[in-house]
Formats: sequence, structure tokens, C-alpha cells
Amino acid sequence: MDRYERGRARFLEVHDEKAFAAVESLGDLGRSIVEFVYGDVYSRPGLSTHDREIAAVATLVALGRSSQLPQHLRASLKAGVTAEELHEVILQTATIAGFPPAMNAMSQLRTVLSENAD
Amino acid sequence: MDRYERGRARFLEVHDEKAFAAVESLGDLGRSIVEFVYGDVYSRPGLSTHDREIAAVATLVALGRSSQLPQHLRASLKAGVTAEELHEVILQTATIAGFPPAMNAMSQLRTVLSENAD
Amino acid sequence: MDRYERGRARFLEVHDEKAFAAVESLGDLGRSIVEFVYGDVYSRPGLSTHDREIAAVATLVALGRSSQLPQHLRASLKAGVTAEELHEVILQTATIAGFPPAMNAMSQLRTVLSENAD
Amino acid sequence: MDRYERGRARFLEVHDEKAFAAVESLGDLGRSIVEFVYGDVYSRPGLSTHDREIAAVATLVALGRSSQLPQHLRASLKAGVTAEELHEVILQTATIAGFPPAMNAMSQLRTVLSENAD
Amino acid sequence: MDRYERGRARFLEVHDEKAFAAVESLGDLGRSIVEFVYGDVYSRPGLSTHDREIAAVATLVALGRSSQLPQHLRASLKAGVTAEELHEVILQTATIAGFPPAMNAMSQLRTVLSENAD
Amino acid sequence: MDRYERGRARFLEVHDEKAFAAVESLGDLGRSIVEFVYGDVYSRPGLSTHDREIAAVATLVALGRSSQLPQHLRASLKAGVTAEELHEVILQTATIAGFPPAMNAMSQLRTVLSENAD
Repeated sequence: MDRYERGRARFLEVHDEKAFAAVESLGDLGRSIVEFVYGDVYSRPGLSTHDREIAAVATLVALGRSSQLPQHLRASLKAGVTAEELHEVILQTATIAGFPPAMNAMSQLRTVLSENAD
Repeated sequence: MDRYERGRARFLEVHDEKAFAAVESLGDLGRSIVEFVYGDVYSRPGLSTHDREIAAVATLVALGRSSQLPQHLRASLKAGVTAEELHEVILQTATIAGFPPAMNAMSQLRTVLSENAD
Repeated sequence: MDRYERGRARFLEVHDEKAFAAVESLGDLGRSIVEFVYGDVYSRPGLSTHDREIAAVATLVALGRSSQLPQHLRASLKAGVTAEELHEVILQTATIAGFPPAMNAMSQLRTVLSENAD
Repeated sequence: MDRYERGRARFLEVHDEKAFAAVESLGDLGRSIVEFVYGDVYSRPGLSTHDREIAAVATLVALGRSSQLPQHLRASLKAGVTAEELHEVILQTATIAGFPPAMNAMSQLRTVLSENAD
Repeated sequence: MDRYERGRARFLEVHDEKAFAAVESLGDLGRSIVEFVYGDVYSRPGLSTHDREIAAVATLVALGRSSQLPQHLRASLKAGVTAEELHEVILQTATIAGFPPAMNAMSQLRTVLSENAD
Repeated sequence: MDRYERGRARFLEVHDEKAFAAVESLGDLGRSIVEFVYGDVYSRPGLSTHDREIAAVATLVALGRSSQLPQHLRASLKAGVTAEELHEVILQTATIAGFPPAMNAMSQLRTVLSENAD
């Protein structure tokens, strides 16, 4: 299986078809994300998807990268990270990156959880 | 047990006496770290220390906060995060925050692991 | 008076009821903001509210944390920081953090000042 | 010719009248941008406008300063930077600052290019 | 008085001869700092030097720009900001930018205060 | 030619053997840098090495990533970027990211240029 196919399979495991279409629409950048981020990095053994998503969420919150955060909050839930664990990750990130990005992230978490409640 | 005592006990569980002395030397800021970060946040149930440290390491790498990273790499190992998992967290952070902070973090991980090998 | 009550009183002195409701809606993160940021830090003597708000505004501008800036611009005016002083703080921040975040902040200051002019 | 006039002329060479009006609306901050950024820095010999814009775009992408990016994407095209070169600059920035800001920038590039296609 | 002379006079009021020599050694960048930062921005009325330095210190702490922080801690003391006020600014910045940069800044404040104690 | 070999050849074109040894010492992270950054991204047509290095330097300066900057200043000179162009890139970055990171970068540029003068 080539890198793109492996990356696509892994991406769909972590996220979903809708997210894949969004990434594919980014052309060569999207291809790099599929091949490198999901085909190479996320396909490595040695770290569970649960822990990968905890790390991804913490990083996106800390850097204030709010466009990509909802997608990884959804991926976290899919990987078995509980809503409570996500809440704790965001609260803890306030101590390392300050309260403002944590406030924004907590609002985004609420929105994602309410989608799931539908 | 008051917040400071609870924070001190939790801090020593996560880190060690030497790290505690360094934090205490920071006066009222050190007191806030003990009371708030460890007495309040780190004492909450809902997220294992293992996962708290994965989140802490990912955040410190992404923000390039190299002064506090070694302490949390040591705390990660103490919490049962394996050297391989730390390696994967750093590698994955390169995809979210770029390769330069991951390069610095990987060098710091090596140094921490070689301490432990002594 | 416990920390939450002290924090609530201090928060209302600095901001207003509407801002308090927004923070309270953030659950435990909101509670930490009330207890720690306002009950502990903002309740300390040794720095006037005027100077605390100048520091808060400068920091939020520099970090590009635009969601929380309007609230602290309003708090600054309430604490007696003049519109001219806010203008100067933003202009000076351009020299330390670059012109782009200062441009965004100046637009936000205009909006806040026009609210007050109503 | 004084600094403001020189800055204004240079600004209009790099950007356009509409962008100039937006900067002028920022009062003294706008004046500093015209005088210092365009009258002093951008008026220096030693770096082509083509290369200045490649540097500006890379920096804005890396810092996630999305409000000012479209203006510099347009200025890049005006300075002869090709759409393909902008694409490559954004893709490369993913390796230094991570994929999330590059994803946002790529969407912004598409929007700017589609304006030009009209 | 031209901009450079005005900037030089203002710089020496805020900092000292030794700091001026360091800036002058940076060539054209140093000239821009003298002319623009001190001749233009810091020479404006509307914000006291005391408040300018509180804003500068808060910003440098938040951005983790540790190379320039000691110089502005010294300038703060010269402008009448007390050691206690600096302590409070750093502690408050922990709530907006996280504890790690505040920890580093607190160590730097200690070093600067101990110089003054000699 | 596989990705690693292509990346290695491209890396050596841009940097040198000594820098390659440093990257190789980073294990799997080093392998990702060789394969992805140099084998995939830097091997793409569509942007000259001259322009890639201008973008890389501007980004590293803006993000304050001082550990990787000297290597890319050297790569810039090797790619035909002049010392004057590097000087201008750093000066311009001060307008987008603030003077402090530009001050540090200018000192690093001096050191790199003095190596070359030996």
C-alpha cells in the first residue's frame, strides 16, 4: 500500500469522510497532510490514537489554532477520549498557555459536544 | 488539608523534592504554582497523570518553552509514559508546530534519557 | 469571605455583570478564573487596577488574543485608563510584537469607544 | 519629499488605494505604518519588492496573522510573485510553523486567486 | 532636533549609555530603534514612562522574549515602577500567557534586583 | 531514487555535511526532516532555493527560533542571498513580528558573516 493510501485509511479511522474532503480540497498541501501526517506519523505504532489526540488537542489549544480544534475534538471523542478528559486537558492548558486560549477552546468543546447530543 | 499542602503532596507525586525547591524559590509565583496548578488543577480526577503529562509535554514543545520541558519529560517517565511515547509525542508535535521546536525537544529528551541511564 | 466570593466581588469591580455571566457559563474553567485570576491575583495589593489593565491590554494585543481584548479595553476605561493611554499602549505594542496585531487591536479599540459614545 | 509622502508613494506601488484608505483610517498607527514601514523600511534598496513580499507572506502565515495576509498575497501577485510561488511558500511554511496555519493560508490564497480570476 | 537626536535623548532617559551602545552596534536596525521606537513612539505624550514600562515588561514576559526583558526591568525601576509592582505584573502575566514564561521572568527579575542591591 | 536519497542529496545542496550529521543524529525525527522537508518539499520545482531561504529566514526570525536560524543564514548565503538581503529581511521582519526577535537575529547574522570572513 503506498503512502497516500495508507494515509487515507488512517485519516478516515481518526476523522471522517467529510474532514477528508476538506483536506483533499487543499491540493498538494492536502496531499502532504494525508501522506506525511497520517501516512507517516499517525501510522506509527508506539502511541495510541487516544494519546495522540490528547496531545493534538493540547497543542492546538495552546497555540490558539481554533480552525483545526473542532476536528480534533471530534477525533478525540471517536478515539475514546471522554468529554471529561477533554475538559481537563483544556483546563490544564490554561496553566501553561494562559486562560484566554482555554476560554475559547472550552466554548468550542461545548459546541462539539452539543452536535453529538443531537 | 489546605490547598498548599494538597498541592505540595501532588507536586511531589508528579515531580520530586529538587523540583519543589526550585518552585518554592519563586516566592508568591511559586506558591501560586503549588496551590493552583498542583493543588487545584493537577489534583482533579478525570485525567490520569500519564495523560496530563502527555498533554503538558506536547504543549511545552509546541510553545518552545524549553526551560520547563526537561522537568515534565522526567515527570512523564515517572508517570509511566515510555521513552517511545515521548518520542512519538515530539514527532507528532512537529506536524502541528513545525520541525524547529521538535528538534530542540528531541535533543532535550535525549539528555533526560541519558540521565536516567546512569 | 471565601475565594469564590472574593473573586466574584473583584471581578464585578473590574468588569460587569454581563461579563461575569459569560465567565460563569464556562463551568469549572470559569470557576478557576473567578477564584484564581480575580480572587487570588487581581485581589492582591501592590499594583493598581489601572496598571493591571494596562498590562492586561498590552499582553492581549501582543499575543493576538482578540476574543478577550474588548472586555479588557472596557475594564481599562472603567479603571480610569484614558482612551488616549489605550491608544498609546497599542501603538507601543507594535514595536514589540509587530504592526499586524496592533492594527487589529486599534480597530477593536474604536469599536469599544463607539459603544461608550452611545 | 517627506517621509509620509515617500511612504504613501511606496505603499501605493506595493498595494493599492483601497488598502491605503484602510491604513489611513487607523489614525496615528496608520501614520506610523505609512512613514516607518513603507517610507523607511520598504523604501530601502537592497531587497526587491518580489523578495520583500515572499518574506512578508511567509512571516504572516507562520504567525497566523490572517487579517493582514490577503493584502500581502495581493501585493505579492502585483510584485510578480506567481501563484505557484505563493503556493510553495505556504507549503514550505508548514514545515517550520506546522500544518494548521498553512491550511488556513492556503484557503486564503484560493480566495485571493479567485478574485483575480474575475 | 532631528528624529535620531530626539530618539537618542529619550533612549538615554529611559535606559542608559551601556544599553545605547548595544543598540547602536546593531547598525541600521539600531538606528530604526533609536529613531522610530524612541524618537517617535516613546517620545509621544499621552502615556507616562512608568506605564510604558509596565506595558513593555508585560509584553516581553508574555512573548517569552527573555533577551530584552532585563533591560526593560531596569528601565522600569528607573521610571519609578517598584520591585513589588514588577513582581505583580509578572504574576498577573501568568494568567494570560501561562506559568512557564512567568517563571523565567521571575528569575530574571531576581537577578536584576540583586544587581541593584550591590 | 527513493525519498531519503533524494532528500539527502537536496539537503547537502542547501546545507552541508556537518548540518546533515546533526539532523541524522535526531533519529526518526531526523529521517522525517530528510524525507519530508528536503525530499518532498524542498525538492519541488516552483520556488528557487534563493527564495526558499528568504522565506525560511523570515519565518525563523519571526517565530524566534534561534537554534535553527544560523543554519539557514548559512544556507541563504550558499544559495546566493547576499548579506545585504539578509539584513533587509531581518529589518523588515521587525515590522511584522516586533524589534526584539529582529535584534537577536541581527546578532546571529553578524556571527555567521564573521565566520565566513575567516
